[in-house]
Amino acid sequence: MARFFINASDIQSGQVTLTGSNASHARVLRLKAGEQVLLCDGTGMEWICDVQDSGLDAVTLKVLEERKSTSEASVEVHIYMAFPKGDKLEHVIQKATELGATKIVAFPSARCVSRPDEKSLKKKLERWQKIAASAAEQSGRGIVPAVEVLPSYAKALEQASKTDLAILFYENEHATTLRMALESKSFHSVSLMTGPEGGLEEKEVDQASEAGLQVCTLGSRILRCETAPLCALSAVMYAAGEF
Amino acid sequence: MARFFINASDIQSGQVTLTGSNASHARVLRLKAGEQVLLCDGTGMEWICDVQDSGLDAVTLKVLEERKSTSEASVEVHIYMAFPKGDKLEHVIQKATELGATKIVAFPSARCVSRPDEKSLKKKLERWQKIAASAAEQSGRGIVPAVEVLPSYAKALEQASKTDLAILFYENEHATTLRMALESKSFHSVSLMTGPEGGLEEKEVDQASEAGLQVCTLGSRILRCETAPLCALSAVMYAAGEF
Repeated sequence: MARFFINASDIQSGQVTLTGSNASHARVLRLKAGEQVLLCDGTGMEWICDVQDSGLDAVTLKVLEERKSTSEASVEVHIYMAFPKGDKLEHVIQKATELGATKIVAFPSARCVSRPDEKSLKKKLERWQKIAASAAEQSGRGIVPAVEVLPSYAKALEQASKTDLAILFYENEHATTLRMALESKSFHSVSLMTGPEGGLEEKEVDQASEAGLQVCTLGSRILRCETAPLCALSAVMYAAGEF
Repeated sequence: MARFFINASDIQSGQVTLTGSNASHARVLRLKAGEQVLLCDGTGMEWICDVQDSGLDAVTLKVLEERKSTSEASVEVHIYMAFPKGDKLEHVIQKATELGATKIVAFPSARCVSRPDEKSLKKKLERWQKIAASAAEQSGRGIVPAVEVLPSYAKALEQASKTDLAILFYENEHATTLRMALESKSFHSVSLMTGPEGGLEEKEVDQASEAGLQVCTLGSRILRCETAPLCALSAVMYAAGEF
């Protein structure tokens, strides 16, 4: 079933009209009267509709059923990633969205080579949010994950520590596994934090411990900075019984 | 500690000389006499050495200790991926190597858009093997995963079914989870098979069942063809107690 993100307020007396990019998308799909589509509001509600009328500029739909999205995970996972080089953050935003993350947060750390300045940041954030929205649509998410940028490592630690469980992955940690952290308490929300290409400094890891994050290993192989968060996210979703 | 892949036969009376690309790499790292490096033969053995002499074209090392690689997983995971479009296979080879796969096998299936012809295949295989070798070196693997290409879907099923556990992921399977499959028997080797962009045909899924593969879900979100194998591999490594 084709999926479209809309605002809940677009639905008036059980009718919705797709316009703009949604209408273009509908045209590409050659939707015909009588076909069913799924509308999502990006906050967890969805509507099964059927196509009433399919025009060039607008497609009119009738709501058949309203329901809570069935594709959201039972656990909220927030990805905290130090600014990586090049387009790796875009890659992680796309994949983490597919894999079910609720939020993706980028922040600077001591060894970050790439630090977008404030001027370019606004444009980049818009672009990143679009990538999340498009990946959410393609993968059938019920929400669009939020993409955020924080001004400092300290702020990232402070915010990450507010979830039920907060984990920092560090390549020099060998004793505490992700499994130990996940089994240490029950949780509904978890933050997964990873460093940049050059890794985190030892004092940054100490800072994380002091802020209440658990420092864990992701195994004996060194993962690239864009691989680590997606590996951890996949494992958390598996551990949470998602598949 | 810097790592280099060598042939075990390069070691003569406890001495090794790095030449060619290894020597260039050593030069980039500015290795100095007295520093320690790790040599791997790509089949699971490794040698801790110290630098005796560091010249422009060659670096001489003395073996201090021979040991079995400590970075290989306790479980052998074989990735079976239907030919994807573009450079996605290269992406999966790099990431699956980091994540600990033992073998990566590409094969054609009914809806594959991309099918390299025999002429281009030889060159591509060489390139893919180089990507695996480079990722193995960077991530600290004890072996270089084999990259293989099979001529048919039937051959892929036949070969995959020879591991202790063989799993096919299918987006229309909702009942059987990866966890159920992994907990259904003890295993040392597992094959993880995924389809191309357009998915697998229903009759291909039936064929897989008949060949003895378990058909599983990877959750309620639709994963791209390059995300699914890496998600499954991460989860299997987690389930196997790797992190």
